[in-house]
Amino acid sequence: MEIGTDAVPAESPTPAFLREHAREIATAASRIAGHVRRTPTLPADEIAAGVSVKPEMLQPTGSFKVRGAFNAALSLLGSSPDARGVITVSSGNHGQAVALAARSLGLDCTVVMPEGSNPIKVAAVRALGARVVSEGVTGANREERARELQERTGLAMIHPFDAWDTIHGQGTIGLELLDDLADLGTVVCPVGGGGLISGCAIAVKAARPHVRVIGVEPELAADATASARSGRHERLAAPPATIADGLRSLSIGDRGFEVIVRRRLVDALVTVTEAEIEQAMLAVWSRLHLVVEPSGAVGVAALMAGRIPPSPAGSRIAMVLSGGNVDPALAARLFAAHAAGLATGGSAP
Amino acid sequence: MEIGTDAVPAESPTPAFLREHAREIATAASRIAGHVRRTPTLPADEIAAGVSVKPEMLQPTGSFKVRGAFNAALSLLGSSPDARGVITVSSGNHGQAVALAARSLGLDCTVVMPEGSNPIKVAAVRALGARVVSEGVTGANREERARELQERTGLAMIHPFDAWDTIHGQGTIGLELLDDLADLGTVVCPVGGGGLISGCAIAVKAARPHVRVIGVEPELAADATASARSGRHERLAAPPATIADGLRSLSIGDRGFEVIVRRRLVDALVTVTEAEIEQAMLAVWSRLHLVVEPSGAVGVAALMAGRIPPSPAGSRIAMVLSGGNVDPALAARLFAAHAAGLATGGSAP
Repeated sequence: MEIGTDAVPAESPTPAFLREHAREIATAASRIAGHVRRTPTLPADEIAAGVSVKPEMLQPTGSFKVRGAFNAALSLLGSSPDARGVITVSSGNHGQAVALAARSLGLDCTVVMPEGSNPIKVAAVRALGARVVSEGVTGANREERARELQERTGLAMIHPFDAWDTIHGQGTIGLELLDDLADLGTVVCPVGGGGLISGCAIAVKAARPHVRVIGVEPELAADATASARSGRHERLAAPPATIADGLRSLSIGDRGFEVIVRRRLVDALVTVTEAEIEQAMLAVWSRLHLVVEPSGAVGVAALMAGRIPPSPAGSRIAMVLSGGNVDPALAARLFAAHAAGLATGGSAP
Repeated sequence: MEIGTDAVPAESPTPAFLREHAREIATAASRIAGHVRRTPTLPADEIAAGVSVKPEMLQPTGSFKVRGAFNAALSLLGSSPDARGVITVSSGNHGQAVALAARSLGLDCTVVMPEGSNPIKVAAVRALGARVVSEGVTGANREERARELQERTGLAMIHPFDAWDTIHGQGTIGLELLDDLADLGTVVCPVGGGGLISGCAIAVKAARPHVRVIGVEPELAADATASARSGRHERLAAPPATIADGLRSLSIGDRGFEVIVRRRLVDALVTVTEAEIEQAMLAVWSRLHLVVEPSGAVGVAALMAGRIPPSPAGSRIAMVLSGGNVDPALAARLFAAHAAGLATGGSAP
């Protein structure tokens, strides 16, 4: 799906928007440098020639989310040195990232997680010292519950994707790819709430406007693709049943909509099936020897399915592998299927 | 097991030995630079504070073996530009590494693998363009068969561990650790044939003699430990049944015996059980998000079992994670056990 809407407000032309936010991303990079890892950019010719990967599963807590979480928490302490604590909404990686940032910086932390959340993930957030609020929280009311709690307690909200501090932190991945790859031609990011791809698109387009930025969604959670098609901010009717649990948000944020659709800073959006995601996970595990979670494998899935357009002559495709927190039961099932396939003479994934 | 033999020939004192071989390792580093990856050194505080890992599963073919294989093949071409090809003996990672080096450099390649070798590994070697010779080959006669073939064909032998070119290539890992960690205090390596630890010990001791080098073997394959204890070159009576399939050699090589035992360039050897290896694999997969094979996990197993002596005050422990080619059926079994443990309230590995 090529993106072709054009509704940029005259009072904020895109070149100025890019300059301002790219400056904030550079600030974020200095701010978080001692707190998160500078992940390497690794060659991934075992997936396809000319491909590199950014292995964000190597971050503390196993995902890129620490970048935005630390940037937001440090920015808060910069502007409000007496801040008491932070609050967020997350059933997954963002909750762990905010809990780690808060613990590292001496802030209180509350994470609102729906009742019935994966107990392993609840335990991981608690192990990092955060308070978990679940009573009466559902997927539908969780944002509202968090806002109520925020107003009552005075804690500062660190939104998982729809806040500039978060987006600027995630955008530091784009800066690192620019540093590492002189011949970068295409950046491929998963799209859930749109924070990761928005930050990366701003960082990349501000410096090298000819580099293509491509977003990948599960077919079952293709709200951004729908928004790009209609030009309106589309929303899924119900939480999608994709195995890519990091990409189950009902819609991209307002800021993501501005970056992706209104300002056309993302060149294309493509979708992948559940089976394609599983094959891509196995390929990353067995060929690159990195443990990737379903959400982190959608870019490789799109590539293997032939849905990433060729990168301009001789230029490299960089895939952001966003995280590695995989359910062990899913991993067991996929490896068992892989072993059975090999035993019956199937080819390697 | 502290190593305390002392039988160094007077005509070759150890300082001169170290200087000569360290120079060869530096040469190997320049020689292989365009052919193998310069792997990063990654913090691994998720395993224990003060620990770093060298993730050699990120190499082409998924193990450190490409370092020695490319060094030997390039060295051969340097001294014999008309060399026709290479031959080796391996049922695992070394075979794939030599096949890749030969293909990259335009050399013929023959790999002698015992009958009944893992068909996945045979297929991987063949996919890299090598000829596999298995007929009548057993674990016991494979070295002899390869020597016969070598004499008949004039191919050059690239031994998996008992050859200086191979050892110098593996030693480049030690150089990279010295570069990356100013506060390196301890290096931990798996011990099979002894090539990896010999190269690393030479590189490290030549530059910083106070850095400790520790070897880890499966309890089921503890021939190096036995050799260090007796001062003689001990050999297992039969191939050991450890899951660490890269560490099943019957004994270390003559060169490894010289480095480890006679010259005492390795400070200590420790052993780990099969269950400890499995727990360590799960810990590396789920905490570091790296796919490690059993042989590559023995260092982490020793650390988790409390068998690595504390590193001198404030210094870092570096663990060489030697490879990531894990049998999918084993991975499926371990993840399933992990998932079942979590479901019944067990703690994370």
